[in-house]
Amino acid sequence: MQDQQAVDYYMHEAIVEAKKAAAVDEVPIGAIVVDHGTIVARSFNHRELSQNALAHAEILAINAACQAKHSWRLSGMDLFVTLEPCLMCAGAIINSRLDSVYYGAFDPKAGAAFSVTDVFALRPLNHHPQVIGGIESDVCGQLLTDFFRKIRRQRQAGKRPH
Amino acid sequence: MQDQQAVDYYMHEAIVEAKKAAAVDEVPIGAIVVDHGTIVARSFNHRELSQNALAHAEILAINAACQAKHSWRLSGMDLFVTLEPCLMCAGAIINSRLDSVYYGAFDPKAGAAFSVTDVFALRPLNHHPQVIGGIESDVCGQLLTDFFRKIRRQRQAGKRPH
Repeated sequence: MQDQQAVDYYMHEAIVEAKKAAAVDEVPIGAIVVDHGTIVARSFNHRELSQNALAHAEILAINAACQAKHSWRLSGMDLFVTLEPCLMCAGAIINSRLDSVYYGAFDPKAGAAFSVTDVFALRPLNHHPQVIGGIESDVCGQLLTDFFRKIRRQRQAGKRPH
Repeated sequence: MQDQQAVDYYMHEAIVEAKKAAAVDEVPIGAIVVDHGTIVARSFNHRELSQNALAHAEILAINAACQAKHSWRLSGMDLFVTLEPCLMCAGAIINSRLDSVYYGAFDPKAGAAFSVTDVFALRPLNHHPQVIGGIESDVCGQLLTDFFRKIRRQRQAGKRPH
């Protein structure tokens, strides 16, 4: 668990990552992994540039954290992500034994931590991280709103394929 | 969709992968991705050797298929895996837009396609692959049973840490 000041700080760092995604025309979602006060991994959504369905911010951050720690077990570490995790990322959070997940905006279309379903509440699973959503959700959500508005305008102007 | 002869053939290929995992002391789970009659990716569980929580057979196969096809969209392709996918892998199957999933043994502890939950039945999600479970489940399950029996014996003999 993190105190409120730390939560705000780390979510800001995840937002920094999300902005890097927007800067390269990717849906702006950022994630970081924190190990007892140290950021051990930071990533942003990279699906289009890498043409890889797995390249969500959380997956890339968990992958980098496993490499940094030389372990598939990220016990004692926390993940911060600007958007509610999808099924794949929620499953990766469970599989990597992360202690806690802090997420920003809710995702009514694909969120697997509250919105569409809550996989962290599935009792038979062998790991149950603490989950706190809605952190800086206005800022995190506005990044997405601005991005999709830009995309729509580009499409309307014929500057981007549908 | 695949006909029964093709299903049996491809599941056999996934079982070949699972046996490769067992041969390097990993939990024997194998997966392949098939694109209109061609195997475009094949992988086996590699979590311990790579010390990476993401290194499930399905994730590695989807990753390889995206790289082979230079696309995050695996539409029109099918995945064969020897064990019911977990949440992470089921989510990756949805995210990569695979047409169909054929799996072998059921996983009462972590299966997300029937056993613990069925995420493919979540209507709000934007992709719903066809899912068929229980293919060659005896063979797929026996591989796992044999593996875990060997592990227990090694532990009892003090040849393997707990």
